Amino acid sequence: MTGDTFKERLRDIIFGTEPGLGRNFDIALIIVIIASVLALFLDSVEPLHAAYGELFYTAEIAFTVLFSIEYLARIYCSVDRKRYITSFYGIVDLLATLPTYLALILPGAQHLLVIRIFRVLRIFRVFKLFKYMSEANILVRSIKSSRHKITVFFITVVTLVIVFGSLMYLVEGPENGFTSLPQSIYWAIVTVTTVGYGDIVPHSPLGRAIAAMAMVTSYAIIAIPTGILSAELVQENQRQAGLKRCTSCQQGNHERDAIHCKYCGELLPEQ
Amino acid sequence: MTGDTFKERLRDIIFGTEPGLGRNFDIALIIVIIASVLALFLDSVEPLHAAYGELFYTAEIAFTVLFSIEYLARIYCSVDRKRYITSFYGIVDLLATLPTYLALILPGAQHLLVIRIFRVLRIFRVFKLFKYMSEANILVRSIKSSRHKITVFFITVVTLVIVFGSLMYLVEGPENGFTSLPQSIYWAIVTVTTVGYGDIVPHSPLGRAIAAMAMVTSYAIIAIPTGILSAELVQENQRQAGLKRCTSCQQGNHERDAIHCKYCGELLPEQ
Amino acid sequence: MTGDTFKERLRDIIFGTEPGLGRNFDIALIIVIIASVLALFLDSVEPLHAAYGELFYTAEIAFTVLFSIEYLARIYCSVDRKRYITSFYGIVDLLATLPTYLALILPGAQHLLVIRIFRVLRIFRVFKLFKYMSEANILVRSIKSSRHKITVFFITVVTLVIVFGSLMYLVEGPENGFTSLPQSIYWAIVTVTTVGYGDIVPHSPLGRAIAAMAMVTSYAIIAIPTGILSAELVQENQRQAGLKRCTSCQQGNHERDAIHCKYCGELLPEQ
Amino acid sequence: MTGDTFKERLRDIIFGTEPGLGRNFDIALIIVIIASVLALFLDSVEPLHAAYGELFYTAEIAFTVLFSIEYLARIYCSVDRKRYITSFYGIVDLLATLPTYLALILPGAQHLLVIRIFRVLRIFRVFKLFKYMSEANILVRSIKSSRHKITVFFITVVTLVIVFGSLMYLVEGPENGFTSLPQSIYWAIVTVTTVGYGDIVPHSPLGRAIAAMAMVTSYAIIAIPTGILSAELVQENQRQAGLKRCTSCQQGNHERDAIHCKYCGELLPEQ
Repeated sequence: MTGDTFKERLRDIIFGTEPGLGRNFDIALIIVIIASVLALFLDSVEPLHAAYGELFYTAEIAFTVLFSIEYLARIYCSVDRKRYITSFYGIVDLLATLPTYLALILPGAQHLLVIRIFRVLRIFRVFKLFKYMSEANILVRSIKSSRHKITVFFITVVTLVIVFGSLMYLVEGPENGFTSLPQSIYWAIVTVTTVGYGDIVPHSPLGRAIAAMAMVTSYAIIAIPTGILSAELVQENQRQAGLKRCTSCQQGNHERDAIHCKYCGELLPEQ
Repeated sequence: MTGDTFKERLRDIIFGTEPGLGRNFDIALIIVIIASVLALFLDSVEPLHAAYGELFYTAEIAFTVLFSIEYLARIYCSVDRKRYITSFYGIVDLLATLPTYLALILPGAQHLLVIRIFRVLRIFRVFKLFKYMSEANILVRSIKSSRHKITVFFITVVTLVIVFGSLMYLVEGPENGFTSLPQSIYWAIVTVTTVGYGDIVPHSPLGRAIAAMAMVTSYAIIAIPTGILSAELVQENQRQAGLKRCTSCQQGNHERDAIHCKYCGELLPEQ
Repeated sequence: MTGDTFKERLRDIIFGTEPGLGRNFDIALIIVIIASVLALFLDSVEPLHAAYGELFYTAEIAFTVLFSIEYLARIYCSVDRKRYITSFYGIVDLLATLPTYLALILPGAQHLLVIRIFRVLRIFRVFKLFKYMSEANILVRSIKSSRHKITVFFITVVTLVIVFGSLMYLVEGPENGFTSLPQSIYWAIVTVTTVGYGDIVPHSPLGRAIAAMAMVTSYAIIAIPTGILSAELVQENQRQAGLKRCTSCQQGNHERDAIHCKYCGELLPEQ
Repeated sequence: MTGDTFKERLRDIIFGTEPGLGRNFDIALIIVIIASVLALFLDSVEPLHAAYGELFYTAEIAFTVLFSIEYLARIYCSVDRKRYITSFYGIVDLLATLPTYLALILPGAQHLLVIRIFRVLRIFRVFKLFKYMSEANILVRSIKSSRHKITVFFITVVTLVIVFGSLMYLVEGPENGFTSLPQSIYWAIVTVTTVGYGDIVPHSPLGRAIAAMAMVTSYAIIAIPTGILSAELVQENQRQAGLKRCTSCQQGNHERDAIHCKYCGELLPEQ
């Protein structure tokens, strides 16, 4: 077996969709990823960390070694190495191992360990989501083509949040939890987005009246982004549907599966 | 009266829509179902259980005997017995009686008694919801045909929840209630879905700023699934409205304003 | 001046849109209604009731006498008395006065006094909302024509609420606030509708995982009623727009303001 | 250099889009605005005010002087002075300086200082949002043309809030936090808009059942404004997309698939 053939075979297994070993590799990878994220989750729970901390530490070293070997293997067998390393998944793969090494070297890098949570994103690769890309593009295009409307919506929301936040700061004051302007702005965001934690609430009658106004306004305003995106997606759907134009009578608006023009009966051009 | 005629008559009463006895049977069944679920509800309230526990127990035995007789009668008089037993309502009918018997035999099966709550679903049968099926199918088809877009939306939400959850774990930490990574992820889900219990809330200024960002993002993101489904249902409506069928090639699915069949070019019939 | 002319003049002032006295009457009526509702509101606040209870009582007697005179005058001068008394506003007018009289006679009827809050609805009459009726009808028609889809949606929500409610009752149990099945169902409704009071929240890790699932499901499910109504209203708009059909080439789908057929150029029929 | 040229040059820098000095001026302005709002925010936090109050005071004087000079310069070099002073941004510019002067003169005007928060809006000017105006107009037009439907929606919400609020006042009463009618109405608004603070919650079983009904109703009702706006924007999009203008009678607003002008019947130009 030449090195080249070995590299190609490795590529088929790691990157490809080979039915035999490739499939087994994918399944094993998913199991290891889930196990490593689970260990990360459980290790962050204080009582479990106290009881099994060393076990989690050993497991983490093992996971990191495994992911490092996988990362090096991916670099080794990829056709365009630079492209892989700088690709989205290349960076995610690196971030899956790097924090553990950094935490070994630098004592202050403990917080970086949380970055390993992004290992979860590596699961999506296995499902080969390329086919979802065109749908994602439609969504992104719809959002982009309505970006001016969305900006208008955001300016409205920002203005509302400032108006209601500063009003409540004046009306309720520090004794009711509205201790500062940023605090009141935070309250306004919590209220206008209908999250409503209840950690800061108005207590005076006037404050409650203003809060009620803020709620009713936000209740109506949430219709705006939804309406914008709905209309945009309806248009996008119709654009997709109406891509055919009859060469005989020049009428467009034919469905994708149409063979004959629905107005004059002539054959439509191939797409 | 032959056994066969009796079986048929029983089938008409239990399964059918016979105006006389069948209607009375349906009304009696609804009353018994509601009474049994009400007893289940009230028995789960501790003070009522202490005062009337034995009454509820006796009633439950009576309900179970009644439902068992009904279940056996349904098996007896159904045309295709296997099909009834394995059907959705066949299983719901069995689950309405089985937990009580199991709890009598096995002492540890007390928790199974909650399953009896699904008796509520048996009410829907009486209303003969077949006519709603085509509408349900339109909804399911719309959701299916936009499943790629919905997957993209879910990956976005999962990523957001992970990013905001782990950020807050770092920024707020255990002293503010963000005791572990799973806890922080839970907070992120409560916030992004705008439920906002308020059992875990940020306390530091930076944490509040990040939480505010999470809220504003989620406020905009809720527009995505709604927009997707709206656009899909608009398209579905237009498709439904324009169901013309070609008399020449027998293909349907023509738009309302079509004059010629888009598949074979023949003239379509007038609406 | 004959009695008949007086009756007609009174009708013009009370019911009509006469610019002079009629307008003054409307303005006076709105002021009295707002004052009476304000008194009702303030009187329900305990400290204010203690301090000014007698003042509010006197005012209430005055308001009731005024509304009673108005009610009798409306009956006196209406063209079809039976129709007025049984109409929506006729009943609201009666409910504006009746509770006070009942509370004078029956000592136990204090609770009925709250009914007077519906006096607020009387304000809407002054604005003569007849022109809004056709818009309200479009909304009602859209909701009606999608009632099967909405029923499917409600059955889905009921099933979800039952499943999540009883699951949480088993998982969390009385020690975490899920004291009974109705309580757990209440929690499920508070969560699925994204209200999220936070009075009952899960405490166990498994309970939190189930709650997170309930939230994500409900976040997606809220898209269904909105999508249904959006699609229905789009169709309704198009139906309104496409009411014209060309008598020459038989093509429909013309806008309301079209004079000539947009396909063949012939004159369209008058609407 | 003549005074006129100087005025024109100043106008280009302050109001215009001059690439050199104008750009630098814009960047400097944004930095000063953000700094002044940040100082305002931090000064409202009690501990920071105690420690650095005098520093913030000095900075505020500096910011006010700067904004005053800018305001006077804008008046000096604007083409139509009256129009600038009464324009939206003219008033915002004045409000950025006025409160500080008033607080110096009047001792009771401390509360006015919060008005300075609207300095934030001045940032938007720099981004020259004129191009967003047409999009904002589409939104405003859509909302306006569906204002009758929205009014119907608001009357429904008001009625619901009154019904549920007064019901809960009767059922729950002062001992469960529903101390007065306004308080109960406030609870109803918090619940129906799905904000759900949790500061006032039902405690009795009947109260919880009514609250659950209010939530399910509001969950369905939020679909109404969204559906209305979606349908309106879909129509608006279609109107915009099909703007063909007839060369014969000069009337626009023809649909995309129109061949003849719907007003005069002449052939429309090719797109």
